[in-house]
Amino acid sequence: MTVDLNSDLGEGFGIWTLGDDEALLDVVTSANVACGFHAGDPTIMRDTCERAARSGVVIGAQVSYRDLAGFGRQRMDVPPDRLADEVTYQIGALDAFARAAGTRVAYVKPHGALYNTVVTDSAQAEGVVEGVRRYGSLPVLGLPGSALLSAAEAAGLATVTEAFADRAYTPDGHLVSRREPGAVLHDASAIAARCVDLATHGRITAIDGSTVTVGARSICVHGDTPGAVEIARAVRAALEAAGITPQAFA
Amino acid sequence: MTVDLNSDLGEGFGIWTLGDDEALLDVVTSANVACGFHAGDPTIMRDTCERAARSGVVIGAQVSYRDLAGFGRQRMDVPPDRLADEVTYQIGALDAFARAAGTRVAYVKPHGALYNTVVTDSAQAEGVVEGVRRYGSLPVLGLPGSALLSAAEAAGLATVTEAFADRAYTPDGHLVSRREPGAVLHDASAIAARCVDLATHGRITAIDGSTVTVGARSICVHGDTPGAVEIARAVRAALEAAGITPQAFA
Amino acid sequence: MTVDLNSDLGEGFGIWTLGDDEALLDVVTSANVACGFHAGDPTIMRDTCERAARSGVVIGAQVSYRDLAGFGRQRMDVPPDRLADEVTYQIGALDAFARAAGTRVAYVKPHGALYNTVVTDSAQAEGVVEGVRRYGSLPVLGLPGSALLSAAEAAGLATVTEAFADRAYTPDGHLVSRREPGAVLHDASAIAARCVDLATHGRITAIDGSTVTVGARSICVHGDTPGAVEIARAVRAALEAAGITPQAFA
Amino acid sequence: MTVDLNSDLGEGFGIWTLGDDEALLDVVTSANVACGFHAGDPTIMRDTCERAARSGVVIGAQVSYRDLAGFGRQRMDVPPDRLADEVTYQIGALDAFARAAGTRVAYVKPHGALYNTVVTDSAQAEGVVEGVRRYGSLPVLGLPGSALLSAAEAAGLATVTEAFADRAYTPDGHLVSRREPGAVLHDASAIAARCVDLATHGRITAIDGSTVTVGARSICVHGDTPGAVEIARAVRAALEAAGITPQAFA
Repeated sequence: MTVDLNSDLGEGFGIWTLGDDEALLDVVTSANVACGFHAGDPTIMRDTCERAARSGVVIGAQVSYRDLAGFGRQRMDVPPDRLADEVTYQIGALDAFARAAGTRVAYVKPHGALYNTVVTDSAQAEGVVEGVRRYGSLPVLGLPGSALLSAAEAAGLATVTEAFADRAYTPDGHLVSRREPGAVLHDASAIAARCVDLATHGRITAIDGSTVTVGARSICVHGDTPGAVEIARAVRAALEAAGITPQAFA
Repeated sequence: MTVDLNSDLGEGFGIWTLGDDEALLDVVTSANVACGFHAGDPTIMRDTCERAARSGVVIGAQVSYRDLAGFGRQRMDVPPDRLADEVTYQIGALDAFARAAGTRVAYVKPHGALYNTVVTDSAQAEGVVEGVRRYGSLPVLGLPGSALLSAAEAAGLATVTEAFADRAYTPDGHLVSRREPGAVLHDASAIAARCVDLATHGRITAIDGSTVTVGARSICVHGDTPGAVEIARAVRAALEAAGITPQAFA
Repeated sequence: MTVDLNSDLGEGFGIWTLGDDEALLDVVTSANVACGFHAGDPTIMRDTCERAARSGVVIGAQVSYRDLAGFGRQRMDVPPDRLADEVTYQIGALDAFARAAGTRVAYVKPHGALYNTVVTDSAQAEGVVEGVRRYGSLPVLGLPGSALLSAAEAAGLATVTEAFADRAYTPDGHLVSRREPGAVLHDASAIAARCVDLATHGRITAIDGSTVTVGARSICVHGDTPGAVEIARAVRAALEAAGITPQAFA
Repeated sequence: MTVDLNSDLGEGFGIWTLGDDEALLDVVTSANVACGFHAGDPTIMRDTCERAARSGVVIGAQVSYRDLAGFGRQRMDVPPDRLADEVTYQIGALDAFARAAGTRVAYVKPHGALYNTVVTDSAQAEGVVEGVRRYGSLPVLGLPGSALLSAAEAAGLATVTEAFADRAYTPDGHLVSRREPGAVLHDASAIAARCVDLATHGRITAIDGSTVTVGARSICVHGDTPGAVEIARAVRAALEAAGITPQAFA
């Protein structure tokens, strides 16, 4: 039994750093690498690709709105055809570094506000998919049931579902909004146990205590705080202890 | 007998346009396409690549300093290793659109202040070459005798020399500085005749009336003013009338 | 009897130009000057302020989302408190040039998608108003009935209503969406006659032929096409012929 | 006896942070606040101005080349007249926040590569000074003997000299290049003792052990590493112990 562990890497810019990439590369199997639109400059991108390649971590393009000042967390009403072009641009730029590091971009995952928008916005979802499709037939990583994965399937792209290690779920399998109390979990061992349950049985305990089915070939962990790195390590250790091998989907 | 005609294309950004790309695509055989650092957004890049591909015009990456506000015309002391990364990034991004248009980036030419800097600055020249080399073995287009072409040769890359249709030359074969009177020529028929002489005999009449040898497999023409387009058309017509076929080097 | 004529100026960036500012400065009484977020670099801002001051045209800050690539035409979900800061930043930067030119920023008008958003989005409207209020008590120019003007009034700022010379209106006094046929008018003399009616009687003929009351102390004209400049000139000429003096509100 | 202590503040951008501003505000008397060109977004600028005002720390505009990706550390050949406009823009933007916080920008200090360039480059120095002069008669903070201070004096601006707490000096009073061994000092108590000597006697021990006269009304300390903050605190404590009052020059 295997499961993929993915996380965001390479999210500094210029002199600024973010997160503990070195620690995460020992934990995850897939790295969502920033492509310069919300974070990530060319030097950081090269360095992150080289380090991921050395660690045997698969590289994905973490595409975003063009929004350095807002870290891609501000929804933008980019027309879908322009969004497609922005996605193609970012994948191409990142793939140059992935190839130079002896590997290649193996999947695409939207970042931040774009990730949230394409859960429900079909037009932008189709824009992202068109941008991916134009580059090549890369798998798309996203939320089960999202407009993004629907559009990707309709376009003939492979889709990969993910769950979030540290987020609470509603009884019908959606994420509890970050504005609600209890939306984000903080207890490392509880989170790790959830992930084992998720990887083993494809289910998760919802915020009301009920059990909900969440199919996820990948689990997203974070590394932007010391606590987050600890959680990520705990998740991996628990998975391995349960006989589940962390392994990239791509 | 053949010669390449190259020009800068895709140099708008967002709502802003520059030059008459449509007219130039009927004239040139190689298009130096802006990659987003001095000009060119993803939509313009896609559109320019598609139009070049339809017109049978070869696509080159016109790499630049990161300087939209200065159109890449301001020299920047970018450390060579960072410059290499910026070059790789730009080529990768453009190549995504070239490939989507059924072709690929076939050469690299620096833009503006970077072009001028790498005539003499070996460190930045090596940075550019490293950025190209890392992407793949693309030919580099530049000034004969430049540090850029020396570095490219040393790295095993193919090099292509170019001459400027509308620029005066010194008796020893260098460009007359734009600050000098007579540095830029404006008479279309005179410029066209120079280009025929250049393509036929590899020589040009210098500003003092002497004849100077200028080996150039490509001639650079401009399209950013109505007059420039007229000159470019006159150059092509004169070459064809002299039995010289405009043909891409790549 | 007087009316203000306003238009967007200084909307180039770096090497790129947009519109015929020189022609507009002979027509309008108020210039909405871009502040660097959707267009306008420091040199263009200084130059535009100097020319406006010489022409006796009043300077307003045309504040925008931070979106050069989309010319500020893409709605962004900027948190209101950050939007306030962005507005203050832009006004302060422009006012430096206005003061150096011997005048000062006399009002604020949002641009593009921000203009459209604050017609109905109270949170962003309050963000804009907070950004203005923090800078000083500048009047705010906007659409009658907009959330922006409501928020400005609530904050104790002066408000100025505007109508659009070349836009069709619904029978209840709103703008016909640009997606509808007939939304934008093109006949210069018809537009000019509408503006005279508007300035004289505060009314306009709606798209269904009915008459609708539109209170507007300012009329917005455009200058980004040759046709637009002609229309702007026709509007001013017709107003003057009708004994209405174009005069800044500020 | 008094001396000013200055440091760079507000050098984050968007999600990214840099340095320990909170700690520095207890140490310094003047804050060089980033203005958005090398670091500092509008929200950070407002927050930094508010905190400086609350702490009684004087605000200066830390103007820079437009270079977020390089943190303003890459020399750019900006034409002096454009540089002047960029300087005016940055001061105006920052002053909006300073005024909103109940104070105002009280001086100007160039950042990074621009600081180094205007030590010797008279054209850029005059550009900076013209940008300051146009905004108002603000004092300029810089290196003794620099082209910047000469140009400022020639333009009738007040000038303020500074020394660097943690940098070695040559026997003729210049900074030892960072590329030389021993250029940067790390021992907090040694640095503190140097600063007392500097503030008391206007002299410093050069790298060869000789004594050199360095007139400095301000001492620059850093806060971008934990060690740097400790040094800054040690400098202040030593000055106070020696009866020298840290006090802003402006």
